[in-house]
Amino acid sequence: MLKEAIYHRPKGNFAYAYKVETLHIRLKTKKKDVQKVNLIYGDPYDWKKKKWDYKKIPMSISASDDLFDYWFIELNVPSRRLRYGFEISDKKDILIYTEKGFTSKIETEDISYYFCFPFINPVDIFETPDWVKETVWYQIFPDRFSNGNKENDPKKVLPWASEAPSLDNFFGGDFEGIINNLDYLTDLGINGIYLTPIFKAYSNHKYDTIDYMEIDPQFGDKETFKKLVDECHQRGIRVMLDAVFNHSGLYFGPFQDVLENQENSKYKDWFHLHEFPVKDVYPPNYDTFGYVESMPKLNTENPEVRSYFLDVAAYWIEEFDIDGWRLDVANEVDHSFWKAFRKRVKSIKPDLYILGEIWHDALPWLEGDQFDAVMNYPFTLASLDYIAKEKIDTKQFANRLSTSYASYLENSNEVAFNLLDSHDTPRVLTECDGDIEKVRLLYALLFSFPGTPCVYYGDEIGMTGGEDPECRKCMVWDEVEQNTSLKKFVKQFIQLRLSEEAFTHGKLSIIQPNEKDNYFHFVRSVKDTSVHFFINPTNQPVKVSLDCTSSNYVLDLWNQKELKTKTNIQVELSANNFLILKQSK
Amino acid sequence: MLKEAIYHRPKGNFAYAYKVETLHIRLKTKKKDVQKVNLIYGDPYDWKKKKWDYKKIPMSISASDDLFDYWFIELNVPSRRLRYGFEISDKKDILIYTEKGFTSKIETEDISYYFCFPFINPVDIFETPDWVKETVWYQIFPDRFSNGNKENDPKKVLPWASEAPSLDNFFGGDFEGIINNLDYLTDLGINGIYLTPIFKAYSNHKYDTIDYMEIDPQFGDKETFKKLVDECHQRGIRVMLDAVFNHSGLYFGPFQDVLENQENSKYKDWFHLHEFPVKDVYPPNYDTFGYVESMPKLNTENPEVRSYFLDVAAYWIEEFDIDGWRLDVANEVDHSFWKAFRKRVKSIKPDLYILGEIWHDALPWLEGDQFDAVMNYPFTLASLDYIAKEKIDTKQFANRLSTSYASYLENSNEVAFNLLDSHDTPRVLTECDGDIEKVRLLYALLFSFPGTPCVYYGDEIGMTGGEDPECRKCMVWDEVEQNTSLKKFVKQFIQLRLSEEAFTHGKLSIIQPNEKDNYFHFVRSVKDTSVHFFINPTNQPVKVSLDCTSSNYVLDLWNQKELKTKTNIQVELSANNFLILKQSK
Repeated sequence: MLKEAIYHRPKGNFAYAYKVETLHIRLKTKKKDVQKVNLIYGDPYDWKKKKWDYKKIPMSISASDDLFDYWFIELNVPSRRLRYGFEISDKKDILIYTEKGFTSKIETEDISYYFCFPFINPVDIFETPDWVKETVWYQIFPDRFSNGNKENDPKKVLPWASEAPSLDNFFGGDFEGIINNLDYLTDLGINGIYLTPIFKAYSNHKYDTIDYMEIDPQFGDKETFKKLVDECHQRGIRVMLDAVFNHSGLYFGPFQDVLENQENSKYKDWFHLHEFPVKDVYPPNYDTFGYVESMPKLNTENPEVRSYFLDVAAYWIEEFDIDGWRLDVANEVDHSFWKAFRKRVKSIKPDLYILGEIWHDALPWLEGDQFDAVMNYPFTLASLDYIAKEKIDTKQFANRLSTSYASYLENSNEVAFNLLDSHDTPRVLTECDGDIEKVRLLYALLFSFPGTPCVYYGDEIGMTGGEDPECRKCMVWDEVEQNTSLKKFVKQFIQLRLSEEAFTHGKLSIIQPNEKDNYFHFVRSVKDTSVHFFINPTNQPVKVSLDCTSSNYVLDLWNQKELKTKTNIQVELSANNFLILKQSK
Repeated sequence: MLKEAIYHRPKGNFAYAYKVETLHIRLKTKKKDVQKVNLIYGDPYDWKKKKWDYKKIPMSISASDDLFDYWFIELNVPSRRLRYGFEISDKKDILIYTEKGFTSKIETEDISYYFCFPFINPVDIFETPDWVKETVWYQIFPDRFSNGNKENDPKKVLPWASEAPSLDNFFGGDFEGIINNLDYLTDLGINGIYLTPIFKAYSNHKYDTIDYMEIDPQFGDKETFKKLVDECHQRGIRVMLDAVFNHSGLYFGPFQDVLENQENSKYKDWFHLHEFPVKDVYPPNYDTFGYVESMPKLNTENPEVRSYFLDVAAYWIEEFDIDGWRLDVANEVDHSFWKAFRKRVKSIKPDLYILGEIWHDALPWLEGDQFDAVMNYPFTLASLDYIAKEKIDTKQFANRLSTSYASYLENSNEVAFNLLDSHDTPRVLTECDGDIEKVRLLYALLFSFPGTPCVYYGDEIGMTGGEDPECRKCMVWDEVEQNTSLKKFVKQFIQLRLSEEAFTHGKLSIIQPNEKDNYFHFVRSVKDTSVHFFINPTNQPVKVSLDCTSSNYVLDLWNQKELKTKTNIQVELSANNFLILKQSK
């Protein structure tokens, strides 16, 4: 047994309270090195005849990647206190693994050997909003979705889609355009929209805010925005806004005041200035986003700044009843600010969704006191590498999804923001080199995986575009130019997702592919039902099989076709296709 | 190279901001498996010719235990943003280890491969009070230290030391007794006292609080307490109190109200009641400390309770200027409460010392937003096993200290509360079976190790006593009955500790013992000075050697004897003895 590969620490993704009397415990061991793991556990104060009165229960492998197996157990802990260790067996040995390392026998006289989860206090539990699991998002880049009101067009507006999108052109999309098309979204099955920034700003993308308390006039005014939220809510659509609190724009009042009054500006501590005079030229002599001089980094540690931005966050919830905040460049803002942010917004709206933009390992933000989830780019990149780019095989794909999944708490995994692309990446069809079949497979994966899926505007009708700004073309509204068959597919899949509980609430198992398997197989289970997903991204048909000997009911969900039960089902899955089998006991 | 043993995550003890432009980075590899580790690092926004402009710097092994080497580097990061990975070499291979796993070459086009420390925000830095490093504590159990005022004796007081301590006898120790003996403490070199609870309570130990806002009348009143703190401060002695916020006593007003008014009590949500009627009998039908019915667990999630206890914490700082809070059963109280606690007390007194009582792995409380340190029982137990009980050899001892040291952030290690015993354990001389030589060695270790050492009252004069209540005997004041030679030794060692910066501020290196080494060797380094500590706990003399070929100055610190430099020093260290060599360049 490889001791060096074994890892556990009663913290983070390895031990956490899932619910008030439920703990999740994970253990990492070398892949295929260990035959069996039992959890040894008990209340630290339960003793019988001067010996600790422990219990034992088997754990199971919930995920595996290239190097490791991840053992998991969901444990009921009515007394809310736990001491525990692991009894790990391979073919030769049985070892006991505790906080003190490895021993050969179960210690019963000295409880201090064991890992400790001292008390599950409800207030420390990571509560994420349940509605998010049942939400299908649609990301809108407002300048490019629909121009509903010519009156509020920016000065240099261009006729819709008359030019390729550039870093600084404008097409006049606005709130009225969105409102006019809510029926389009409802028809597609969308029940959440995520808007990139809508506050007064200089650029077309609005990530360079001038005023966080004002709507950009090219999109409308507060009244129109209120109408947008209300119309959305009436249709059961949630609304998420983009909070750009890491940096402001150059024309943000306080920064302009600094440029004007320098040392004498009362806003000089709102930023991270290196010296005076502050000059808005490259390279900037103040901290910025990257080295972009037009995006001065905000000093969110300054109590005034902190209070200003917490008020901004509160204002748009209290006055407009928004349902989520997506946090731009969330990783560079201080943790202390985000902790205060969570407290403030959840005190106003306990089920508000807090979504951070973090591309790398985000555990430090996902332990319950900051965000609910992050934009799941690891999912995006792995899926594109597997299906669009064919850069990795099924095994590598399963490994990457498993590593990522095992890195976080279930509480967050369940509301992970899954996406295939965004305003910051090339569009999915472009990544697939125009291959619609691949896009369909990617959607099948997106809409089946745990978390909350998001469609980037226009992807559903086959829009293309490379890196920013190409991915920000004007929405194509003429049906003749739309890929209506793809749209129909997306609509049908969303309907399926929202009609089957396993798609939104099912526990995930990623089935380890055998050496020869060139299809990806995963399962979502809820109560007595398991839904099996098979994805074949190759140009060859593959044979998939499923043991249904103890099933009373098996349905091919996509084709709504009942299959024979009490047997071992074998199905040929055609090239570039997927299969969804719903199996009930 | 054993990939499965390699571990890093940009979080907790593996990557943290030590200071505003300084990051600490750790990497775990299989023991003796790896020859060299280079950190590959850079600002994520520094690119040259479309390639990431990274740098490379070697890391070194800072600690090793049974299974692992811990590589470490303190890195200056002026831009406060970092992407990084590891170049790991063994005799055969060079592997690059990043967030995406292992690769064979350094990726320069896709920064997303690398681990990320996105921004060092000062507010997130774990600031611990510097004075603590220069403090030598003295723990006082007030009923047993000195009776300075017969007027305030409890009813059933016994003549001083007339009986063995029992669970419920009283000896009348009080604040005036402490005040009268401050010169004794000052003479010993003590500059911090930690008092077990002093608030109104039923028992002799006072862990069953009746009133958190009142001094127990057997100890004095608020005026006497104020005088005690003032007298201490005049002598440069800090004062730390014991906060018992996990549970109250049975006679705490709110709990009595619950017993009296049951469902109608306005305090029913102050506790965790399982049912009505609440009965104070065993087994309790409410949550308690352990299953002790006289210690009902407080519901610190209830905003009223929270606010009450935060006010308690603030009151004793604001009104009496105390310098530290030691938090009893800290692990069972919610994290959310401790986060608010830190904010509140540090806002009043930024350098207040927050010390948690946690016996097990305490990282979840030691990441900067809760405690400064915990009571270092892992140090206690390892030291006793090595020196007092001879249960482990030098190698095992070095492993245990190293594992524990590498588990935490330096910010906390530097103020770890090191102790040999307390009111909760047998006394050190008893653990040593009366062997004063061993006690001297344990003190040598205690006063030399990083952290803040604490002497349990009376240990310095050779008091004995087994498990509670035996370890709570009355202080022996008659010099005839005191071990004055031990007292002199303790005094001398404290003087040495406080006169040599390396003892209080030196960085620790634990030297890996060779197979044959039966002495423990560690080093504390500050600037150009290294102080080497050798401890020989065996009954045989050992030969220790030190390379002083490049030293200009070598001093045997304990014996104040200069040694020859520019040579390889070889010294015979006698049985049960220690040696301290100060080496300067």
